[in-house]
Amino acid sequence: MKFAYLPKPKDEPIAALEAKGHTHVGLEDNPDMVVFGGGPEDFPDELPASVKVVQIIYAGVENLQDVFAKHSKNGVRFANAGGLYDDTVAESTLALLLAVEHRLKAVTEQWNNTQLFEEKQYLFDNKKLALIGAGGIGKTLIRFLEPFGMEVTAVNRSGNPVEGADRTVTLSDEVWAEHDYFVLLTPLTEETRHMVNAETIAKMRDSAVIVNVGRGPLVDTEALTQALGSGTLRGAGLDVTEPEPLPADHELWDLDNCVITPHVANIPRFTLRRIGGLAAKNWELFEAGETMSTEVDVKTGY
Amino acid sequence: MKFAYLPKPKDEPIAALEAKGHTHVGLEDNPDMVVFGGGPEDFPDELPASVKVVQIIYAGVENLQDVFAKHSKNGVRFANAGGLYDDTVAESTLALLLAVEHRLKAVTEQWNNTQLFEEKQYLFDNKKLALIGAGGIGKTLIRFLEPFGMEVTAVNRSGNPVEGADRTVTLSDEVWAEHDYFVLLTPLTEETRHMVNAETIAKMRDSAVIVNVGRGPLVDTEALTQALGSGTLRGAGLDVTEPEPLPADHELWDLDNCVITPHVANIPRFTLRRIGGLAAKNWELFEAGETMSTEVDVKTGY
Repeated sequence: MKFAYLPKPKDEPIAALEAKGHTHVGLEDNPDMVVFGGGPEDFPDELPASVKVVQIIYAGVENLQDVFAKHSKNGVRFANAGGLYDDTVAESTLALLLAVEHRLKAVTEQWNNTQLFEEKQYLFDNKKLALIGAGGIGKTLIRFLEPFGMEVTAVNRSGNPVEGADRTVTLSDEVWAEHDYFVLLTPLTEETRHMVNAETIAKMRDSAVIVNVGRGPLVDTEALTQALGSGTLRGAGLDVTEPEPLPADHELWDLDNCVITPHVANIPRFTLRRIGGLAAKNWELFEAGETMSTEVDVKTGY
Repeated sequence: MKFAYLPKPKDEPIAALEAKGHTHVGLEDNPDMVVFGGGPEDFPDELPASVKVVQIIYAGVENLQDVFAKHSKNGVRFANAGGLYDDTVAESTLALLLAVEHRLKAVTEQWNNTQLFEEKQYLFDNKKLALIGAGGIGKTLIRFLEPFGMEVTAVNRSGNPVEGADRTVTLSDEVWAEHDYFVLLTPLTEETRHMVNAETIAKMRDSAVIVNVGRGPLVDTEALTQALGSGTLRGAGLDVTEPEPLPADHELWDLDNCVITPHVANIPRFTLRRIGGLAAKNWELFEAGETMSTEVDVKTGY
């Protein structure tokens, strides 16, 4: 098949697709597939009628809802990059959680720091973790956490069992009340926006830690800042924030119980290494008349 | 039996020993056992002839060699606290390694930081780790690392297989040349002092990372500082340093590829929670005429 790579062609995935016998062309050359790595403003207003599939190179596609609505009417099908980031984001989640609990940001040049001795917590020490949204990243995280003997509750909308979790439930007050750690991995929708807010934080233990590696707006930044500053929450690890970038003068940067990374849980190197293979696989499934492995459900938007 | 707790009695382990039917007394009341938590300068010049066993509450006992020599002549036997720190130190090792590889100290307020994208490394990404000294901490670390699919080489003096390692070897130039990560866990002896020095660093890959959670003097601080500053080594995670405390104005504090924690890999809370049980178990073994589970070999000094 012929594919275009927009908005900016990248060597590594193009080579991977060419190795599978596909041909890189421009959008004007009637491609069968478009591999797309931009924001909504970069998406072509019109697609040639030849385009049957658009492979997006990221997993959180909430900003492309208008694009889906417009082009799916013409029969175009979309796939996201779910699954490509499972290991990178899961490992980054573990790094954030450990950095928070081991108080790495509170380290000073002082030895025999009794405050550090008191505040340091260990993951192996009878902790309970709630995975809010448990797809591929969550399942990989469960694997990474397995040696720590943590009790893991997966939280999803169906309550259908998630492999590896000790239990799977739907979200409730009990979930907020009964866990030490909350890892946010759920897609951003109107339902999940600001799911962590002053009200849900009030239900949590004072010793709770929140790790957001999903989308910034899952958390009400103001409520989180207040709770971390006052000690109503023990800590947070954030790879995504609202707004993003987080302003350089934002109070969260100064809190030693808040470890922030600037949206680097996954990094472009890994996307480029893997997206060609996923696009090729999805094309095969499309040609075989099947649902693609990461096909976007245009109704739910993810 | 009767036990004294020196130099400063601690409630939690005393309660644990009392729960096993033992009696807390002063040194002047002819104890059978001494539980000892101080440095060499705190050790009594003379022990009552009643004392048969000294349980030390830490694992690295290189500073007590003179104490061992003097009192073992009178038949006193010593046990260290090996094994009590396996999980705390192993988890802290993982936290340091992740903090170094995920470049947490290099994070700035800048989003889309291409340098961070380039430099960040993942443990799951085909890494090779050498455990220099592979006792209980090392075995626990192997368990914590298992989900990352890392290739683990255990290095010990005998070359006798270490459970969970992909191979066990004695130290050689190849070991320094062929691994990405070096975790130092070996006891400090004249043989191991400054085992990481300018010469051994020169044998390592530029991408190598050293994590020292053993003893500070295992590493030549000056050679390490030079290598980290010049990029001959990618990074280091240090929970112990030489000297210790590391002076507040030492260059290592300013290097963003060097993550330092002030000797908190294990913390007193866990020692106090566990040492009473270990002392009771060692007393039982002693009474049964057996070698204690963590008995110090006075000849080798650990």
